[in-house]
Amino acid sequence: MSQSQIPVTVLGATGSVGQRFISLLDHHPWFKVVALAASDRSVGQKYSQVCRWLLNDPMPEYAREMVVVPASPDAMSAKIAFSAMPADLATDIEPQFAQAGFAVCSNASSYRRDEDVPLLLPEVNAEHIQLVRQQRVKRGWSGCIVTNPNCTSAGLTVALKALDDAFGVKKVFAVSLQALSGAGYPGVPSLDVIDNVIPNIGGEEDKVEWEPRKMLGKLMDGKIQLAEIGFSAHTNRVAVIDGHTVCVSVEFTKPTDPEAASQALSAYLAPTSARDLPSAPRPSIEVRSEADRPQPRLDRLTGKGMTTVVGRIRRDPLLHLKFVVLSHNTIRGAAGGSIYNAELLVNENLLR
Amino acid sequence: MSQSQIPVTVLGATGSVGQRFISLLDHHPWFKVVALAASDRSVGQKYSQVCRWLLNDPMPEYAREMVVVPASPDAMSAKIAFSAMPADLATDIEPQFAQAGFAVCSNASSYRRDEDVPLLLPEVNAEHIQLVRQQRVKRGWSGCIVTNPNCTSAGLTVALKALDDAFGVKKVFAVSLQALSGAGYPGVPSLDVIDNVIPNIGGEEDKVEWEPRKMLGKLMDGKIQLAEIGFSAHTNRVAVIDGHTVCVSVEFTKPTDPEAASQALSAYLAPTSARDLPSAPRPSIEVRSEADRPQPRLDRLTGKGMTTVVGRIRRDPLLHLKFVVLSHNTIRGAAGGSIYNAELLVNENLLR
Amino acid sequence: MSQSQIPVTVLGATGSVGQRFISLLDHHPWFKVVALAASDRSVGQKYSQVCRWLLNDPMPEYAREMVVVPASPDAMSAKIAFSAMPADLATDIEPQFAQAGFAVCSNASSYRRDEDVPLLLPEVNAEHIQLVRQQRVKRGWSGCIVTNPNCTSAGLTVALKALDDAFGVKKVFAVSLQALSGAGYPGVPSLDVIDNVIPNIGGEEDKVEWEPRKMLGKLMDGKIQLAEIGFSAHTNRVAVIDGHTVCVSVEFTKPTDPEAASQALSAYLAPTSARDLPSAPRPSIEVRSEADRPQPRLDRLTGKGMTTVVGRIRRDPLLHLKFVVLSHNTIRGAAGGSIYNAELLVNENLLR
Amino acid sequence: MSQSQIPVTVLGATGSVGQRFISLLDHHPWFKVVALAASDRSVGQKYSQVCRWLLNDPMPEYAREMVVVPASPDAMSAKIAFSAMPADLATDIEPQFAQAGFAVCSNASSYRRDEDVPLLLPEVNAEHIQLVRQQRVKRGWSGCIVTNPNCTSAGLTVALKALDDAFGVKKVFAVSLQALSGAGYPGVPSLDVIDNVIPNIGGEEDKVEWEPRKMLGKLMDGKIQLAEIGFSAHTNRVAVIDGHTVCVSVEFTKPTDPEAASQALSAYLAPTSARDLPSAPRPSIEVRSEADRPQPRLDRLTGKGMTTVVGRIRRDPLLHLKFVVLSHNTIRGAAGGSIYNAELLVNENLLR
Repeated sequence: MSQSQIPVTVLGATGSVGQRFISLLDHHPWFKVVALAASDRSVGQKYSQVCRWLLNDPMPEYAREMVVVPASPDAMSAKIAFSAMPADLATDIEPQFAQAGFAVCSNASSYRRDEDVPLLLPEVNAEHIQLVRQQRVKRGWSGCIVTNPNCTSAGLTVALKALDDAFGVKKVFAVSLQALSGAGYPGVPSLDVIDNVIPNIGGEEDKVEWEPRKMLGKLMDGKIQLAEIGFSAHTNRVAVIDGHTVCVSVEFTKPTDPEAASQALSAYLAPTSARDLPSAPRPSIEVRSEADRPQPRLDRLTGKGMTTVVGRIRRDPLLHLKFVVLSHNTIRGAAGGSIYNAELLVNENLLR
Repeated sequence: MSQSQIPVTVLGATGSVGQRFISLLDHHPWFKVVALAASDRSVGQKYSQVCRWLLNDPMPEYAREMVVVPASPDAMSAKIAFSAMPADLATDIEPQFAQAGFAVCSNASSYRRDEDVPLLLPEVNAEHIQLVRQQRVKRGWSGCIVTNPNCTSAGLTVALKALDDAFGVKKVFAVSLQALSGAGYPGVPSLDVIDNVIPNIGGEEDKVEWEPRKMLGKLMDGKIQLAEIGFSAHTNRVAVIDGHTVCVSVEFTKPTDPEAASQALSAYLAPTSARDLPSAPRPSIEVRSEADRPQPRLDRLTGKGMTTVVGRIRRDPLLHLKFVVLSHNTIRGAAGGSIYNAELLVNENLLR
Repeated sequence: MSQSQIPVTVLGATGSVGQRFISLLDHHPWFKVVALAASDRSVGQKYSQVCRWLLNDPMPEYAREMVVVPASPDAMSAKIAFSAMPADLATDIEPQFAQAGFAVCSNASSYRRDEDVPLLLPEVNAEHIQLVRQQRVKRGWSGCIVTNPNCTSAGLTVALKALDDAFGVKKVFAVSLQALSGAGYPGVPSLDVIDNVIPNIGGEEDKVEWEPRKMLGKLMDGKIQLAEIGFSAHTNRVAVIDGHTVCVSVEFTKPTDPEAASQALSAYLAPTSARDLPSAPRPSIEVRSEADRPQPRLDRLTGKGMTTVVGRIRRDPLLHLKFVVLSHNTIRGAAGGSIYNAELLVNENLLR
Repeated sequence: MSQSQIPVTVLGATGSVGQRFISLLDHHPWFKVVALAASDRSVGQKYSQVCRWLLNDPMPEYAREMVVVPASPDAMSAKIAFSAMPADLATDIEPQFAQAGFAVCSNASSYRRDEDVPLLLPEVNAEHIQLVRQQRVKRGWSGCIVTNPNCTSAGLTVALKALDDAFGVKKVFAVSLQALSGAGYPGVPSLDVIDNVIPNIGGEEDKVEWEPRKMLGKLMDGKIQLAEIGFSAHTNRVAVIDGHTVCVSVEFTKPTDPEAASQALSAYLAPTSARDLPSAPRPSIEVRSEADRPQPRLDRLTGKGMTTVVGRIRRDPLLHLKFVVLSHNTIRGAAGGSIYNAELLVNENLLR
């Protein structure tokens, strides 16, 4: 499989997450982008003409001359569709692609809560990918939909997984300081965030309080038992380009100390099936010992933006421990995560 | 008393909080600045020559031509000394002023934890000012030291006071997003905070976890019984000029709902003795109903920067309620708070 | 006239400049806001419900409960209409108001270049207001349209006026660093301007190269002779909330030195008819001697935001002098300027 | 030469430019870092312990365990010394290294104006490196000092060189919007630059008005004839992490149009001796055609940060053309430039 290039497409290719897909898929060892899909007003034009490129790294050469096609399975021939569409469009269009045989690896929130749809962080719950088999039976699809979590849930859940395995997580307080790229483009007006904080992100807190429970849940008899963990989340937008910072306090079943927690986090290994994939974070988790790290500008690109960075592990006067988690929101928390999911599908022979 | 102008001085007059004192004391109805004290290298020069003014509002005329004096009680004649000195200097110098008969109203953390030193937010615990009487007896001072809390504790404690009175506060999670002016000048390097968050502020979490307990404590038999409230705090520095935002989750003795909490906060009144002072916040607490308020740039000047602004009051899945508190860190949380304390001293006839 | 309150309206009341009008008209000694007009989706609702308020100072009480009306002269009864509408709407709507007898004081660029329309900075060219008489005759209006310049032209032209009077200005290089509020709301996306500069503002350079020539021109025989001054402008957007900074190099007819230029700027007085109006800047120009001023955050509110601040006056190796000009773009450069224009109309008995 | 690794050292290794050296020298094909020198308080400790790393990319592995040595030629054995020391230290220490046989490639301004010291941008004036021969004779050094220009002069001069070759440059207006990393660390306080512009950078304007004249000068009879070009510069600091933007207006000997200028810039090739070196920018100059480019965040990494990016080429109403130049200040304008200079020394067999 790895010799042959697997044809893939990006749906919603001109947006902020779409651009990240295009950047990360440049020179990917397994995948070859054969189509870029976007909204009607871009269709028929060259990608470089219609896309307002926002990333620090230049637009990859391969994408510049590609002619944008409609987001329709008939318009292209590919095996995997990476979806960076907004939720309202994703709700309608993703099933069309799954029906037509595409493996849809989606960032959208539309199907994350469906019982037969994997909500996937391969370094956390690779085995949940097996839900795809039931999904196909139940929905009569030859393709499938696999989702990755909300960008704030991603890093938080990776850190919690390592701690849950070792000490059992019971309760979690999480307060995020989220980056602007998470809101897309044009997204947050500059007048709203310079010399300012926006103490709310619509719908985000519900996601952060629920998604980790599915990802940390056990797959039993083809069903996921939601993890019995209580969550409380506050979400904030701050003047950071990329990288979500989360302040976390945790209560454990087996109380522990900062030293042991640090070791559990540092030693955490992804499940075997997800460990050696091209996009696997190396390492899954990096623990920093400085008093003032992680910081988004300095640490977001750890492990090419796929590694979850944890720091300031210390005792919590009310629960057991508190610490800070940092994760790159458009790489580990979005496009990079979807690509990692697709690699797992390939590795598990789940492509049709 | 209010007719005659009470002579006051500012110690540490050139720093960020010192400037706020000078600005807020311009045209104060009771106080007249008669001396500005700063470090040796400024002594003997005009204030306008040695001070790198940082505030949006221009330097008041009265201060421009004043000649800076040393921070020594012999160098000046005043009744009140507003201290904006760093803690290490304050530790030595403030007692000299108290000994010499000055009422020292201090922002420094040096004496906040001393049993006989009031840690004061007049709209919260005006009665604690009576500790001054014992302080004088015990230390043999004709003057006194009165402190105001850490800038993050200030707004948080005002909000908690209203809720504690109504529902009894048991546990508090607090995560701050703090402004740069809180770090003084030059303070935080720009390279550290643009496109970035610093997830630690040295010593701050200890203060936020302890100071509210003293301020919410009862004064019984001349001693303060620390409030039996559990606190957990995370503190962060973000790219905001002024205004600390705190995300708070609270557990109550008598569980309540957002509506009732909102009413208790809105209806909160300062103790009678503190209610009508010149710097009293009007109102003490403002509750905002928008989904994305309070925000530092838009709300920090509510009530001339003295009002505590609360918003996003909603249920918390783990404790009872969560909400956001905003307070101006160099006004309510520093210079404005000290001036308010001094007004209370005057009102209670505690000046010598 | 000053006893009776003159009824005024704000067109485009919900936008960024509209909000500035509403703020500056609070407690205005001559004007009373009787109607707020905005787009159809706001009409019929309370102003506080439809306006996303962006200013640091809270929304004035008087405006909160006002019900928004359509931008039509039939919908209201007022003598002056302050227009904060975008140019495309202004082009159609402003003449309707002028026809109906309103004195339209406009920020829009639509009619600035018309020969019979004053482009006005009262402290610079108060006599140009007389064009209103011809405008009425020519167009058959009982009202009129009076415009204020582009926000970057404003401060630049005030400084040039003082220098032109004293030394004769021949050539001007001007490079602006403009604030975000100049782009309205939502305006510039945060992803475009944090850790970034946008080296272009559509249409702005043309305005900066032309408008000062009209304002510095002589009114002769009822016509304005454009000033014979050559201009070259570059315009940039930077991460500043309010306050446009302009780097200027100037060649004079009578070469001068920094000292004399500084004196000419400091000594500049507005024409008599414009000098004592309520919104007249006090002083017209402030010259700062520090090596690193003016700065937008520190100096934009000089003279309540109406004063033009000049600094760093020094020799230019190619032309004669170079210096830095700062002006508040939504006060002196927009709403405050329009109100000042209206005051001049009143003072000159040009209201109908 | 290229097979064997040439031993090099970095002087001033812990500062902002020193870090850039360490990052850019990681895996350099010719150079191997054998010593890191810094101030006394760091000597004897591991680099990773004493350096507050500021770059987005992590600290290279090779540097982490290196023990910092004093900035003395006796303390190390290397052929090239990259100097990132402040000017006052560089003045004393660089000659000691040159005397001891090191080729000193310096960012400091100390010796830039000396007649026998090359001020070098290899893609512009590679032949100036021959000054080294006279420098050795005159000073009796076995090593040498080679300097690179001020970070703002760098990109500006590259663009001017291409235009000067084609059309002859006579006069230049240049207004910079400079990044924070140019001020080192801690450098600019955050309170000075958030929501603000600082319209002055000490000493910078003199450098920008003089250095390009030396670099664009002809080497005749062993002496550089300064180019007969008039310069006027304004320099500003803005809230950008990396990347200096310069607005430029130019008068030519042979007037030209934007199209021809764009072609001359795009077609510009470095001198043969400098063209294929490892750090040579590829291309030397990139011309962008969008209306709002170059922008620092999006374009500073063009050509790995070594390419000069030019955009918005248009007619100037006073001179002939105006345009915008962007250059990465700590790569092309500092550490990357010095490394490129060292490569040219190697290529020209000028190492001893």
